[in-house]
Amino acid sequence: MITLHHLNKSRSKRIIWLLEEIGVEYQVKPYLRDPNSSLAPEELKAIHPLGKSPIIEEDGVVIAESGAIVEYLIDKYAPYLQPERGSTSYIEYLQWIHFAESSMMVPLLLKMFLQRDGSKTNFLESYAQTEIGKVCMHLNQSLEGKRYLVDNKLTGADIMMSFPIDAMSKTEAFSFFGNFKPYLESLRTHEGCQKAEQIELELNT
Amino acid sequence: MITLHHLNKSRSKRIIWLLEEIGVEYQVKPYLRDPNSSLAPEELKAIHPLGKSPIIEEDGVVIAESGAIVEYLIDKYAPYLQPERGSTSYIEYLQWIHFAESSMMVPLLLKMFLQRDGSKTNFLESYAQTEIGKVCMHLNQSLEGKRYLVDNKLTGADIMMSFPIDAMSKTEAFSFFGNFKPYLESLRTHEGCQKAEQIELELNT
Repeated sequence: MITLHHLNKSRSKRIIWLLEEIGVEYQVKPYLRDPNSSLAPEELKAIHPLGKSPIIEEDGVVIAESGAIVEYLIDKYAPYLQPERGSTSYIEYLQWIHFAESSMMVPLLLKMFLQRDGSKTNFLESYAQTEIGKVCMHLNQSLEGKRYLVDNKLTGADIMMSFPIDAMSKTEAFSFFGNFKPYLESLRTHEGCQKAEQIELELNT
Repeated sequence: MITLHHLNKSRSKRIIWLLEEIGVEYQVKPYLRDPNSSLAPEELKAIHPLGKSPIIEEDGVVIAESGAIVEYLIDKYAPYLQPERGSTSYIEYLQWIHFAESSMMVPLLLKMFLQRDGSKTNFLESYAQTEIGKVCMHLNQSLEGKRYLVDNKLTGADIMMSFPIDAMSKTEAFSFFGNFKPYLESLRTHEGCQKAEQIELELNT
């Protein structure tokens, strides 16, 4: 059985979705952020030295890093959630898997960090905004006329993207990018996505 | 033939190494950062909307995101640079591929951004330091008794890691982590790594 070490309000929600989607037996071990500092609790460090979430455990093997978890689970249990290896679609898929955690997340995190810190910077706030604009424009353009990122069907790329697009939906900028809302709505039609939402809600109440 | 759109002082250097390592025919199309702003030139946007590097082009297909490029090239041309799919080593490999661009890069970039900005923050500088400490300790520990990250031989994981470890080598903190220097030295024994260094030097002079 797979154990998901799940932290509330984290990138881990999409792993619940993925686990639901592939239909394997799994259990969620919940951890809660410190309500003041928003930091993950120390207990998570006993599972993996970085003390972050998501982390999955299966047969004693511990796997961290969202992208690695998604690639691993889909390879093993749900090849239908990725295009055929070697195809041009697979190249697109790989790019989105990495984009969702690197190019897209860096400016989103930078902005969030600066907001939490609250101090006035020289150019960093405007740099973060510009970069968010760039990644969002690229994503918005790529979603033109599409419900999903690759091959017009649900893949791991969408499950990876569900975290940053969900984060964006809580910002004013969301409405500037016309394809974001229909995309997020498409994702939310999936039962696995709804289940992840529900588990997250239960943890937060 | 593969074209690498290469920006000086960027994550693209490791792609030169990989291309050398796999022995395919390729050409480097060089771009230079603006000497004042350090930003990538506008021309890169004509290749990919994010205007970043590395980007490779092959048979009209454009591929961005370091991790995607590394996974793609190794899958297609150099399966010996990754452990067998489905093995426990492959899981380790995947984690390092993602770690090198997400968990490790986020605090390194945050610190670099804050230094460039130069303003005083409330807690962000110390947060970045703490996070850099965490990822470095994890990496250092994982390198204990090893010359390479996975299976004690060169894999794409090391090629991915060559960028952040090289960045770390330019900081004071480098010497705190005893396994970093021997690791970097191991990487630099590879001809492909030296060739990438040399091409980068030529571009910067």
